[in-house]
Amino acid sequence: MDHARDMSGADDALVAELATKGRAAQRVWASAGDTQKADALRAVAKALRESGAAVLSANAKDVTAGRERGLSAALLDRLTLDEARLEGVAAAIENVASLPDPVGQVIDTSTAPAGFALERRRIPIGLIGIIYESRPNVTADAAALCLRSGNAALLRGGSEALHSNRAIHAAFVEGLSRTGLPAGAVQLLPTQDREAVSAMLRAAGLIDMIVPRGGKGLVARVQADARVPVLAHLDGICHTYVHAAADPAMAHRIVMDAKMRRTGICGAMETLLLDASFPQNASILAALADAGCELRGDARAQAIDARVSAAAPEDWDTEYLDAVLSVAVVDGPDDAIAHIARHSSGHTEAIVTGDEDVAARFLREVDSAIVMHNASTQFADGGEFGLGAEIGIATGRLHARGPVALEGLTTYKWLARGDGNIRG
Amino acid sequence: MDHARDMSGADDALVAELATKGRAAQRVWASAGDTQKADALRAVAKALRESGAAVLSANAKDVTAGRERGLSAALLDRLTLDEARLEGVAAAIENVASLPDPVGQVIDTSTAPAGFALERRRIPIGLIGIIYESRPNVTADAAALCLRSGNAALLRGGSEALHSNRAIHAAFVEGLSRTGLPAGAVQLLPTQDREAVSAMLRAAGLIDMIVPRGGKGLVARVQADARVPVLAHLDGICHTYVHAAADPAMAHRIVMDAKMRRTGICGAMETLLLDASFPQNASILAALADAGCELRGDARAQAIDARVSAAAPEDWDTEYLDAVLSVAVVDGPDDAIAHIARHSSGHTEAIVTGDEDVAARFLREVDSAIVMHNASTQFADGGEFGLGAEIGIATGRLHARGPVALEGLTTYKWLARGDGNIRG
Repeated sequence: MDHARDMSGADDALVAELATKGRAAQRVWASAGDTQKADALRAVAKALRESGAAVLSANAKDVTAGRERGLSAALLDRLTLDEARLEGVAAAIENVASLPDPVGQVIDTSTAPAGFALERRRIPIGLIGIIYESRPNVTADAAALCLRSGNAALLRGGSEALHSNRAIHAAFVEGLSRTGLPAGAVQLLPTQDREAVSAMLRAAGLIDMIVPRGGKGLVARVQADARVPVLAHLDGICHTYVHAAADPAMAHRIVMDAKMRRTGICGAMETLLLDASFPQNASILAALADAGCELRGDARAQAIDARVSAAAPEDWDTEYLDAVLSVAVVDGPDDAIAHIARHSSGHTEAIVTGDEDVAARFLREVDSAIVMHNASTQFADGGEFGLGAEIGIATGRLHARGPVALEGLTTYKWLARGDGNIRG
Repeated sequence: MDHARDMSGADDALVAELATKGRAAQRVWASAGDTQKADALRAVAKALRESGAAVLSANAKDVTAGRERGLSAALLDRLTLDEARLEGVAAAIENVASLPDPVGQVIDTSTAPAGFALERRRIPIGLIGIIYESRPNVTADAAALCLRSGNAALLRGGSEALHSNRAIHAAFVEGLSRTGLPAGAVQLLPTQDREAVSAMLRAAGLIDMIVPRGGKGLVARVQADARVPVLAHLDGICHTYVHAAADPAMAHRIVMDAKMRRTGICGAMETLLLDASFPQNASILAALADAGCELRGDARAQAIDARVSAAAPEDWDTEYLDAVLSVAVVDGPDDAIAHIARHSSGHTEAIVTGDEDVAARFLREVDSAIVMHNASTQFADGGEFGLGAEIGIATGRLHARGPVALEGLTTYKWLARGDGNIRG
């Protein structure tokens, strides 16, 4: 007990020390202009390319250790870097450098009743904590987005990618130092101690926001324990509702894409709602089953195709991230919207219909971060939404929602310009 | 221990029951249009006027009980309603009804790279918890702002105002029921048990945001214990920096207003930073002392006027809310900005100067929710900023900052309109 308390105190002190350093660097960084920030990121990309051999050699250590520890083939694939992937990481940093700087953007202007001028102007949030798992590219992606928006980053990657993360972080330090910027703007937590993650989660006032990047277990732990605001989504239980007035070919195309294009992403459809009045329900289910998708449905879905097994109650609240789909037959938009209200994770839902009134109602009444008409839920992504990148998708109610990129990494301040105004 | 756990369980169950009712009412309320919401608030104001005698009689009970419990004159004054104040409460509800409806406003539109149309549209946040102290008018003000923006409110007022709050809440229920809207959209916690407040604070997923309204003790407790996002400010340690190039008459006028107009509001100046090169420092300090302001300063401020006593280190971090002022003499903008960075609570800071370059630098580098040039910090208020009202002033980094009114009580969703787009 005393031992645990001591350890916890040491972790708090470590996080406080890193956060203080990060906040000081951020204050310098916050006053950097658009060009300076973009140039610094290009210098980082250059440093990363120059240290390519060191990064790949560090990554090989992680992959060997992962193989010895029996990591699954999927995890090993996520962990592995090669020259092409490393070039992709460097190019992604340059892409973030090319995005418009959100800092200094004027949100709106007005004149106060007393006559002074008001404007709201975007500023960086401050110090962002990023807690992630086995993909080493997150080190670069997340740090680049934080830096581009004038923030500092405190990174804590998974132990599987320890050497890779250190090598990529070293390239950031090298690139920043070449441009005369404080390397404290990007720090990597120097310990894999899990208690240090807890210390980050409770560092309210030191860390301004935490973004968890990884599986549901990680996100759930961060959401449950954090005293620092968290930007995240826990589940992506995305629904597609095929309305009676859907174009059959379009419905077929969208359903197949939403479920089968990539089954492991958070925007993949997990529940299909078929309107009882839609004439082509049988052919849609047949196409899914033929494509190797396991179907779990209610009694009416089972009656349509013998390959549909009985869904258990928990299926309606399950994010499969696999070639498995829950299927319910619903009686019109009321029923579909009610099903979504009960089971949605607030991520992304879609309707397929040719009826504009029904579509408008679905867009209005479904309360998810993203609501789509006649499009695949697999578009739920910052890049696909034209944001140029994304730090993640948020399903909370406050701050930023849906795909979050640079704007979501800013806050704002009010500027008031008077000529001697007093309230009197 | 078991008893405490049982009690806590009962409070959690109560809050869950109220929140479930509130969320169901909010889903109905969210689809109400602008006119319906405005009309409902006007019906509430009418019901409040009609029940004026009952509200005043309930209030008299609270005032009598407060007097018996030995409440201070200031607290008794805050608690007391009369016909004029009650009319003010009803008029404030009608004022909120007249404000533009933020729900449905389009934040921006774009076209996704794949060709589908995107827009971000404002929607209500959901269920807002309001935890407040002795002013019964908060019951009406906060509930009206929540309703106008399509949210439901769960109110927990102070025990001193129990009968007043119940009577005002009854007028809301009456007004809403006349317009056919679910009265669950505004609920008052039926117990004064402090554990019930703790249950509200930990009701993440049931309550979407909590706004504490009251003294520093209340706000500090809410910020420390809440697992629900909190919109608040803890302190208003507002600084005014009188630069060397300030117009002397303007500096005098702004300083006197910022400190002495009303000393008890969060926008009142608590620290005056006098530039060593400003020629009229002595007359400004003399005017403050002559007006009855206690001055606590550093050695150089003490050297200017004998009535300045020595400031203790904690004075620089103290919100006096009284006719007391910390005074430091600084050497130019660097020194002033550094002092503010060290001691500011992130609320409101002002500079008085005729030098536009220095002003621009101050506005850019000071990282508070509100930064002012040539104006009194006492303008830090939603009404004075033209928002028509305010639910509070926020100094956090996420969501809304500075004075928060209807817009800050909304979030947004992304709407995507395609023509069969798949990611492919």
